[in-house]
Amino acid sequence: MQRRIFALITAAAAVVGAGTPAAADPKPDDAVEYRQGMMRGIGWNVSPMGAMVKGKIPFDRDKFAFFAGRAALLAPMALEGFTPNTADTQSEAKPELWRHLDDFKKRIKDLEEATAKLASVAKGGDEAAMKQQFGDTVKVCKGCHDEYQKKH
Amino acid sequence: MQRRIFALITAAAAVVGAGTPAAADPKPDDAVEYRQGMMRGIGWNVSPMGAMVKGKIPFDRDKFAFFAGRAALLAPMALEGFTPNTADTQSEAKPELWRHLDDFKKRIKDLEEATAKLASVAKGGDEAAMKQQFGDTVKVCKGCHDEYQKKH
Repeated sequence: MQRRIFALITAAAAVVGAGTPAAADPKPDDAVEYRQGMMRGIGWNVSPMGAMVKGKIPFDRDKFAFFAGRAALLAPMALEGFTPNTADTQSEAKPELWRHLDDFKKRIKDLEEATAKLASVAKGGDEAAMKQQFGDTVKVCKGCHDEYQKKH
Repeated sequence: MQRRIFALITAAAAVVGAGTPAAADPKPDDAVEYRQGMMRGIGWNVSPMGAMVKGKIPFDRDKFAFFAGRAALLAPMALEGFTPNTADTQSEAKPELWRHLDDFKKRIKDLEEATAKLASVAKGGDEAAMKQQFGDTVKVCKGCHDEYQKKH
């Protein structure tokens, strides 16, 4: 138990380069609300890109690039809300997340890279490439949700 | 009523440069959750800066600059969650917000500018200037909350 706690603290401390999670002494509920807010923000921007890719709304390169840029800004923000003191807090996170923290962190890193690439590709304006990279990005989202998010 | 709806739609359409609010067809609850998430994200980063300014935790220039940068990225994101179809949705927004939308938008613009300046000042590393600009930024937050956020 001691070692598990130490591992969680080390993992959380590694999140922000400066050495601590964002809040000075974040309450578990605040941390959960924060990270859910960041995830919702990503979803808010992914949703209209998905609608464009699926042809539900017209494909608009400028809007797509705007949403992709937003998603890329938000993706690196969520992780620091997974503070050790939220491991037992009611949330959408499966308990497995805390037992496989290295894998979870790798998946968040993959999300950061996928959204950064999406934003970069979107600036280029190649519709086929944007759709391809959007698909790759959504796979990263889904893979992590399947593994670590409770079913709704 | 017709004119009011038109004004709201015009205001919301002006939010994103590309011409629409973020989601393709955002449900009111999703829009409220989104904007609350962005506001919580700002608070998550403002909170430890405040703790530093008040001397509750040690003043750390690097961490302060990190949080200021995050707040500056999030500040421009909240407004687009104030979609016209949320005017009657249960939220923390007072009804006055929808009657004074131009004032509200100006205050959000002030927040964007204040956080951008805070991030810029924080990069410079002058502790006194950082504390001064933090105070100015918090005034913008508080002014808008007093005016348009329901009391908790």
